Amino acid sequence: MEQSKETINSIPINGKVSNCDENIDHNSTDDVLLDVDIGDPIMYYPYWKSVDEECSVTIKASAFLSYFVNLNKDEFFYHVPGFTDAIRRIHRVVGNAVTEGRYIIAGTGSSQLFNYLLLALSNTVTSGTTNKRVPVVCAAPYYGLFAASVETEKSSMYEWRGDTRTFDDKEGPYIEVVTSPNNPDGLWRKPMVNREGGMLIHDLAYYWPQYVPITGPADYDIMLFTMSKFTGHAGSRIGWVIVKDKELASALMNQSFLRTIGCCQEGQLRAKTILNFIADSYEKTPIPKVMPTTTTENLFEFGYRVMSDRWEMMKAAVKQNNLFNLLEYPDQHCNFFGKFHLPNPAFAWLESKTGEDASELMREHKIQARKGAMFGSSLHTKCVRITMVGSDDQFRLLIQRLSSPPSSVHLDEVPSISKVDINGN
Amino acid sequence: MEQSKETINSIPINGKVSNCDENIDHNSTDDVLLDVDIGDPIMYYPYWKSVDEECSVTIKASAFLSYFVNLNKDEFFYHVPGFTDAIRRIHRVVGNAVTEGRYIIAGTGSSQLFNYLLLALSNTVTSGTTNKRVPVVCAAPYYGLFAASVETEKSSMYEWRGDTRTFDDKEGPYIEVVTSPNNPDGLWRKPMVNREGGMLIHDLAYYWPQYVPITGPADYDIMLFTMSKFTGHAGSRIGWVIVKDKELASALMNQSFLRTIGCCQEGQLRAKTILNFIADSYEKTPIPKVMPTTTTENLFEFGYRVMSDRWEMMKAAVKQNNLFNLLEYPDQHCNFFGKFHLPNPAFAWLESKTGEDASELMREHKIQARKGAMFGSSLHTKCVRITMVGSDDQFRLLIQRLSSPPSSVHLDEVPSISKVDINGN
Repeated sequence: MEQSKETINSIPINGKVSNCDENIDHNSTDDVLLDVDIGDPIMYYPYWKSVDEECSVTIKASAFLSYFVNLNKDEFFYHVPGFTDAIRRIHRVVGNAVTEGRYIIAGTGSSQLFNYLLLALSNTVTSGTTNKRVPVVCAAPYYGLFAASVETEKSSMYEWRGDTRTFDDKEGPYIEVVTSPNNPDGLWRKPMVNREGGMLIHDLAYYWPQYVPITGPADYDIMLFTMSKFTGHAGSRIGWVIVKDKELASALMNQSFLRTIGCCQEGQLRAKTILNFIADSYEKTPIPKVMPTTTTENLFEFGYRVMSDRWEMMKAAVKQNNLFNLLEYPDQHCNFFGKFHLPNPAFAWLESKTGEDASELMREHKIQARKGAMFGSSLHTKCVRITMVGSDDQFRLLIQRLSSPPSSVHLDEVPSISKVDINGN
Repeated sequence: MEQSKETINSIPINGKVSNCDENIDHNSTDDVLLDVDIGDPIMYYPYWKSVDEECSVTIKASAFLSYFVNLNKDEFFYHVPGFTDAIRRIHRVVGNAVTEGRYIIAGTGSSQLFNYLLLALSNTVTSGTTNKRVPVVCAAPYYGLFAASVETEKSSMYEWRGDTRTFDDKEGPYIEVVTSPNNPDGLWRKPMVNREGGMLIHDLAYYWPQYVPITGPADYDIMLFTMSKFTGHAGSRIGWVIVKDKELASALMNQSFLRTIGCCQEGQLRAKTILNFIADSYEKTPIPKVMPTTTTENLFEFGYRVMSDRWEMMKAAVKQNNLFNLLEYPDQHCNFFGKFHLPNPAFAWLESKTGEDASELMREHKIQARKGAMFGSSLHTKCVRITMVGSDDQFRLLIQRLSSPPSSVHLDEVPSISKVDINGN
């Protein structure tokens, strides 16, 4: 990676993030693209930094020597004791998912569980002896890594078939991924195909009160959650799936055992600690009906404040810039905060007013956003996705550039993370 | 799981292991099978317990908020800084693998990397448009989870074809797994097929001085290692692969990114801490030419002492029992310890003298061992695998039962871990 191609993203090193204004010399970064392509959730850093002393984990040398960390007969042996309890507890506190009578299985991020689900669901409908793979579809625009991971894996059992709008199999089994709120556009999604043979995976990574009003506990057959976008702990790679069906739960555990012998126990312990810390904070301090001051706020108030401030700034910058349309979201009553509020999606999804390639327009503002075409449909070339969950520095520079006139300077493309090159060539 | 089916295995709960004699009431366990089926490496507990204060990790709330933990251009972004340095360092200290000029990629255990390797290697030789999958073979007896994970995954690109002896494809690409020392039999393995088109994966999980004399640094194209059997930290699910080829390394990183966005950073941090602790201990205390006393021993001396003591007891019990043959291993010069010694494999591989089913003979001694037929060939029904790396309690009871006359009492089978049932039914 040459110096001229470096990005400004505030990236944590060894668990520490430089997240203060003085760490960026705005003058020296004038000639590089601002990378707002990836949804790296480091906006949560100031909150977690403020509770570092109260919420840490110490793991001694003799811990986690065994594969079998759990002897509870109702639990999977690799689940750290208390881990699934903490998950059930936080969902109860927030009221965003039903966990009573459901099975919970942890994975190396929800992405690992996504692939385990595809295989387990495919196994229920095909013997694998025919050449017919189970189609996996999702309404575009959708999270591009769904497609990439399925296409990379090259399973004999299922295949990525892309946008539900172009899916025309009139019969037979299929799997539909329903992401609500949706990445990239923040909209609440419902299944689109709606015919016999459908198996639904609900991805609820963003169904937390800082992003969207919590209108009730989700109660779908299969619900995916992850630490990454909820608390910001993307490096832990801890996700979980909540499933109703016992046989599906067994199949997922069996895959987890046979393919990776569970997932990292240190990561689970940390997730458990963080989830219980959040739940504790709401038991000590009841959920305020009025937004608290910054000195008393807990995670969701912090997240909601930062996100709604940023969305105000984003709307103002887009208005001033006058090149893009932003989606408008209706306000809804949030059961968690006990009031009506607008959604504050984790990504801004902008459409160029003229129909031009929005990513090119962004480049003229020295902004590298994720191209709309990467979300499953060429219809979205005029759109672009921008992360709203990066560092304060990154966001301030984003607003500054978006509000300024376009630049005529040509800037080299920022290297894409999906084409990572180990020698930086 | 009913009470009568419970096993005696000393299993750690919440990172703590009950590993003292007084915790087992030998009288009360007379009527249950002793489960020595699984190679759960808790023999390392006393060593790590003794250094708990010196070798712990504290992770604060604000750590690992980002996917991008590493900005070094020669490193993969999800590798915790210093993680691969610690791996290179421990291999230098032990002298068991060449890492200079090699690429290192971490995974959720070496099992995850094994499947990533199969796909990456298959991608180099087939477009995936034909129905021909790349055969994956291994000389039996082999680790059964290789077969189970490949068969479970149902890839369109590769398929498990089992024992090299029955593999008769005269041409075309194939992948051969070479485990040295081998699980279950502890023998040093070489490739068996040896023809054009072969791609070799060397699994070196047990190539550490407590198990086998270190005769020189391994220098294969693809080498798999894991924390599980090396330090005993099986719960961390941290493995790594050392590869020579840059394009293969890139392909593995790409899969790791697309399929799970790396692996748990807490687990990597802990592995780094533990590996550096071991390396430090040998820099402070040079490797002794004579085995040290228990008060001065470091990990490898501890491991070697426990393993060689256990093997002496095992040989004596088998001799007294007179029903089984044990393999005999030649002594070799160990460059690490600077002396000749015998291998102390992590598993005992016993063959019944009469050719009877060895697992049935073991059951008559109230011992549940892993059946020989589970290692890839019906030829091995007369064999059985017993873990040598369990707790002291478990091992003492094993020796006691193996040395005693057979019992006529019929005992129910211990539930198999591969048939895990979430409700214990």
